[in-house]
Amino acid sequence: MVDAQELAGSVQVLAFDVFGTVVDWHGSIVRELQALHPQVDADAFARAWRAGYKPAMERVMRGEQGWTRIDDLHRQILDGILPRFGLAHLDDGQRRHLNHVWHRLDPWPDTVAALQRLRTRHTLCTLSNGNLGLLTAMAKRAGLPWDCILSAEVFRAYKPDPVTYLGVAGVFDLQPAQVMLVAAHHDDLAGARACGLRTAYVERPLEFGAAHPKDVSPQPGNDLHVRDLGHLADLLGC
Amino acid sequence: MVDAQELAGSVQVLAFDVFGTVVDWHGSIVRELQALHPQVDADAFARAWRAGYKPAMERVMRGEQGWTRIDDLHRQILDGILPRFGLAHLDDGQRRHLNHVWHRLDPWPDTVAALQRLRTRHTLCTLSNGNLGLLTAMAKRAGLPWDCILSAEVFRAYKPDPVTYLGVAGVFDLQPAQVMLVAAHHDDLAGARACGLRTAYVERPLEFGAAHPKDVSPQPGNDLHVRDLGHLADLLGC
Repeated sequence: MVDAQELAGSVQVLAFDVFGTVVDWHGSIVRELQALHPQVDADAFARAWRAGYKPAMERVMRGEQGWTRIDDLHRQILDGILPRFGLAHLDDGQRRHLNHVWHRLDPWPDTVAALQRLRTRHTLCTLSNGNLGLLTAMAKRAGLPWDCILSAEVFRAYKPDPVTYLGVAGVFDLQPAQVMLVAAHHDDLAGARACGLRTAYVERPLEFGAAHPKDVSPQPGNDLHVRDLGHLADLLGC
Repeated sequence: MVDAQELAGSVQVLAFDVFGTVVDWHGSIVRELQALHPQVDADAFARAWRAGYKPAMERVMRGEQGWTRIDDLHRQILDGILPRFGLAHLDDGQRRHLNHVWHRLDPWPDTVAALQRLRTRHTLCTLSNGNLGLLTAMAKRAGLPWDCILSAEVFRAYKPDPVTYLGVAGVFDLQPAQVMLVAAHHDDLAGARACGLRTAYVERPLEFGAAHPKDVSPQPGNDLHVRDLGHLADLLGC
């Protein structure tokens, strides 16, 4: 941990992981699924869908699949899990609509007000593996006040590839230490730290749902450890 | 010209050219230069700087210079013209500050209110040859409410390369005809039209300053021809 006021002075750009950090993917998918297909175990469905996410990006990064956007990876994973949940009968239009639930994820309750505060003193961007279209639709619907939407799609590489973290610094013509990654995932933060970025860990104990609480105990190495984004705004004096 | 209400229903994304269309580069540069270096012919200086812009991008697109962002092209052009205006003595810090005037361009008087109206029914993005960092700083300072900032930098090609226009449609997973380019330059609009985008021409008669009024008479081929962005919002029913 370092002095937060000193950090606030040196960090120009706050780059946010999105899924799980800014928005509640689990709760949002559960709510949509319960409304559309109440017979399905929505909690298990949401976790199965998300579980396919990292392996799919890894296939792309290993070159086993050409560059593929998250919208398309989400659809591939969806097509793979639907039979298991008794939804193999969904037609293309229904699958397309369901796949776009990732465009309609709800922010955590603290998110929007905290981003508005942080925005007064910092440039806020996304650094998400989600594609630009997804992140734009999500921001418009949820009122997320990004100054700039950056994505793996811009850098043609998925986090934790160093190209993504260094890419943010490059876009803003800054040193890596003038950028802070804000994320609820230690592997993401470790990737950023290895590139010289500052890091803030955000506790999101309910990321995987109330039935599967996440260990959010502090780990060494992060510059800040915060309960939520409002706490981050407090620490940074916004 | 087509039926504007029909257009309003089919066009999802409005992609905006920025320099000259959304912001007043000539007036902004003149004002900064008059404040910093009142002895210089600010009008001639602004036009000389801008005149180097297209040739510089063309050198990049011909491969004579590797991919170079507009911030760096602006600096190269600036270094080239400073002696002609008696400013060869400016040091690196002064040149860097002056070069960033492109981050500090003022919007036209109608811009911000019109974008707020247009944003209620459409997704608004930039499609500018300006780099992401420049466009983000400009938007933050001027209060331009973009849903997403897209740039030649994302597509690694400068307008009027088709990759840029088709890239916008691709980012939003739309057909080209669901995207409309809004610009004050006929060559830009022609490039977009050739790719199947809809086009709206915006009159900006003072783009090159009051001493050099621009011919803004309608040309065939554009879907809409508007006096300013407020007029565009009127026609699209926003």
